[in-house]
Amino acid sequence: MTEFDLSRLEEFKAVWRKEADRLMPVLQHKAEKPRQFCQVVWDGTKCQNIDTRPLASAAELSSRTWKKGDRFILDFGEHHVGFFSFEMHIENNYCDSPTSLRILAAELPYELTYDASKFHGTLSQGWIQEEYFKTDELPACVKLPRRYAFRFLLVEVVACPGKLVFDSIECDTISSRNYLVPPPKGLDALDSAIWTAGCRTLRECMQISLEDGPKRDRRLWLGDLFLEAKTNAVTYKNWGIVEHCVYLLAANCKDNGMIAACAFENPNIVNLCYLPDYAMIFPALLMEHTERAGDSLAKEFYDLALHQVRLCRTLFDDNGRIIPSNEYWFFIDHEPTLDKNTPEACVMLYSLNNMARLAEHFGKVDDADWCRREFAAMAKLLREKAWDAEKGVLVSGDSRQVSEASQCWGILSGLLTQAEGLNAINYALNNKEAVHAHTPFLKHFVLEAIWKCGGRETVRRMIRDYWGRMIALGADTFWEAYRADDNDISPYKDPFLSSACHAWSCTPCIFMA
Amino acid sequence: MTEFDLSRLEEFKAVWRKEADRLMPVLQHKAEKPRQFCQVVWDGTKCQNIDTRPLASAAELSSRTWKKGDRFILDFGEHHVGFFSFEMHIENNYCDSPTSLRILAAELPYELTYDASKFHGTLSQGWIQEEYFKTDELPACVKLPRRYAFRFLLVEVVACPGKLVFDSIECDTISSRNYLVPPPKGLDALDSAIWTAGCRTLRECMQISLEDGPKRDRRLWLGDLFLEAKTNAVTYKNWGIVEHCVYLLAANCKDNGMIAACAFENPNIVNLCYLPDYAMIFPALLMEHTERAGDSLAKEFYDLALHQVRLCRTLFDDNGRIIPSNEYWFFIDHEPTLDKNTPEACVMLYSLNNMARLAEHFGKVDDADWCRREFAAMAKLLREKAWDAEKGVLVSGDSRQVSEASQCWGILSGLLTQAEGLNAINYALNNKEAVHAHTPFLKHFVLEAIWKCGGRETVRRMIRDYWGRMIALGADTFWEAYRADDNDISPYKDPFLSSACHAWSCTPCIFMA
Repeated sequence: MTEFDLSRLEEFKAVWRKEADRLMPVLQHKAEKPRQFCQVVWDGTKCQNIDTRPLASAAELSSRTWKKGDRFILDFGEHHVGFFSFEMHIENNYCDSPTSLRILAAELPYELTYDASKFHGTLSQGWIQEEYFKTDELPACVKLPRRYAFRFLLVEVVACPGKLVFDSIECDTISSRNYLVPPPKGLDALDSAIWTAGCRTLRECMQISLEDGPKRDRRLWLGDLFLEAKTNAVTYKNWGIVEHCVYLLAANCKDNGMIAACAFENPNIVNLCYLPDYAMIFPALLMEHTERAGDSLAKEFYDLALHQVRLCRTLFDDNGRIIPSNEYWFFIDHEPTLDKNTPEACVMLYSLNNMARLAEHFGKVDDADWCRREFAAMAKLLREKAWDAEKGVLVSGDSRQVSEASQCWGILSGLLTQAEGLNAINYALNNKEAVHAHTPFLKHFVLEAIWKCGGRETVRRMIRDYWGRMIALGADTFWEAYRADDNDISPYKDPFLSSACHAWSCTPCIFMA
Repeated sequence: MTEFDLSRLEEFKAVWRKEADRLMPVLQHKAEKPRQFCQVVWDGTKCQNIDTRPLASAAELSSRTWKKGDRFILDFGEHHVGFFSFEMHIENNYCDSPTSLRILAAELPYELTYDASKFHGTLSQGWIQEEYFKTDELPACVKLPRRYAFRFLLVEVVACPGKLVFDSIECDTISSRNYLVPPPKGLDALDSAIWTAGCRTLRECMQISLEDGPKRDRRLWLGDLFLEAKTNAVTYKNWGIVEHCVYLLAANCKDNGMIAACAFENPNIVNLCYLPDYAMIFPALLMEHTERAGDSLAKEFYDLALHQVRLCRTLFDDNGRIIPSNEYWFFIDHEPTLDKNTPEACVMLYSLNNMARLAEHFGKVDDADWCRREFAAMAKLLREKAWDAEKGVLVSGDSRQVSEASQCWGILSGLLTQAEGLNAINYALNNKEAVHAHTPFLKHFVLEAIWKCGGRETVRRMIRDYWGRMIALGADTFWEAYRADDNDISPYKDPFLSSACHAWSCTPCIFMA
């Protein structure tokens, strides 16, 4: 059976880092100008009850003057990621003192109401896209050094020597694929809008890495990468960036060989994050990439993938439950009430199944046999311990909790048959006691599971219900978190921290291609 | 008689601009580290009733960690001008979000108490050396793009991903002469301290131009230049920077040929400031430069200098009074109650006298004769209209105001004899009804006038009284404005705007060399 040579890990990591650098995507730049001056208005039908109304064409910008205390909001028409530049002068060019500006870049209108003194989020306030800057001499074109993810830009004149004129405010937008893929023919208006917002979400996240969100955390996560790679396969087909990302994650393996859950481009920033469920999906990521783009990536990482499977297998006890550990974060979903035992075990089955397919692809019979045997044993265990035959659902933990998570991974792993799966997922979806998907991340796997069971119309309807509702609320990119029953949802205790363009929400395109 | 060819002004200005560029001084860089952590304390014996007390050696900086909300103050030991760099990392190098800092650079301890929301100054709030900045990735060395004038630096952690460590905070200090000239032998401790503070003040203002103040306005003014050139002549003897500055001011002449009162290095910033009293001292500046450094500069600007004299002569009426005009700012001093008629007329005499000497130097007999004739005529007029024979003082305007300004310019111009002058200036200095010098700018000319009348011991005592008191209040550079009876003096309605290192205060050195 194939063994991963852990003693050579540091050597492998250096090679992978080098290959990640070689595969570094090139950013495509595009200058974007604002479309409209706008104002913030209360609107109960929009996201967080705030919308904007246009006031005037932004073409009027250069003919207006501003003084200390003035502020205005520009609408760039759609979500962008990039660097702002401000071309400014003082009327009559008498600039005898510095000009001081405050800017606030916002993905959603609500963020334009930000007041720093009222922040109460649990993540760094540094994520808020508020900036103060001064410029000593005008006329000048000031290009800000930091990147923003935004549709709206609020500009406030804190101080200036006279009447300030903005000759131009522009954004040097960037993405590795800085364009939108047109929707497939035959989609209606709502589905077209969903396609475009999904595609735009991926475009914005597709920077040097496939980021989770360009506002926050601006970082590569293996779980998000899996969904982005799936969506990329039906839209941009940018195989190079997927490969860059896999090499970067592999270059950040833990000492025991577990692939990193997240990674930074900057080699000086240390990754401390390892999620077994992300490591377990690695074989599936390689298998899907093989089917779309050839097997060279899978060949390079075959040993490492098998190592993930064997390593994660040791994290479960004889009852198929997670062995408690402080070393790892078992994720599945941002839902505090979720019991993760059965979902994680099903992801383990999913991992074994995909690894077996990969082994078969490369003719590694011994490895495939081991995976199949382990699958059978663990599947038997789960049937005994976590199958509620009466209801026809998988249950989890001592409380025998029913969740969408358990059912969808039960289906995707191949533990449940198509008929069992359809019944089980419908039960979970429609049962008020069941634990439902909290994030679009898990929501995607629910859809994929229903799709696998043949419920294509259900999937299309659910997409229109969930992602379509975000469109109705004003989204032009899909959000990190959304629930129909909570207009202010925020995983980090302050909605100003929320990411309104988040990779794991871009997947509806997969079901429309 | 020599005529300035005004029709060729634009051509001359282009040549002068080019020559100013050729003479551009080279900045000397020196890395400076903080000496002490310190805290702000109330102290009624110090400037603005605020002082600092040392807390610990700044060598401890790199062994401390800071979290959101923490703040500290560093004392760099003396006044510097330069660019800060912050070498930082997050403990364990897990930097998953941006770091956001607020800094406040302060010349005097009082400025460390700044609260932006309470600002009420009449100049741009942009002058306050407060900055917010964010850095996305640590470890890094962040060098801020703007220049600061400071001795103290307050650092506040607005947000950061974990425990922030400052491996180093440094300042890349700059000056065209980045060192101090040792005091002449034989000075006592107070005089040595006054010399060093004067010298440091000039060092800090000696950037690309001779600036008025490195915090504010960071700009070349002809009046300040005159005093800086005098002090430079006994300290740094940096003749090149004086010549650079003269070319730059000349390159900014008004359409009628009046030399600019101030100028910017950046040719895109328009100068709109013309002060007749500054234009009138131009011949004296050239004459003094000739005596110290040779006559090539005076030769180049002889025609322009004579043009200033003839032009400014037209600004006075047949009674020797200023003809009211919206075109010019008659300055003399920042003292709202000052009647400027006689002081300005005496500066006109000073101008004629110095121009005559310059003409004689170059053998231009006709020009010298004209100057002498004009001097005699105007002197006669002033003796008739503005001389109070009873008190033995010059008076100004309908109110027959007695001021230090009238007496000192009466002396420096040669209108008054040594004996008349000594009596007149003593009368003004000791008379409660008289208008006294408000700024160190006019204070300098008062000293120079007393010196000219042979009152050397009086000058030395006045320096110890005025500049020495600034030292006692905590100055290590001399201030833009100071009055013994007003600890909070501010020409711009908010002491946070004041410049604590201002060129026109650097002149005591002249009387100590």
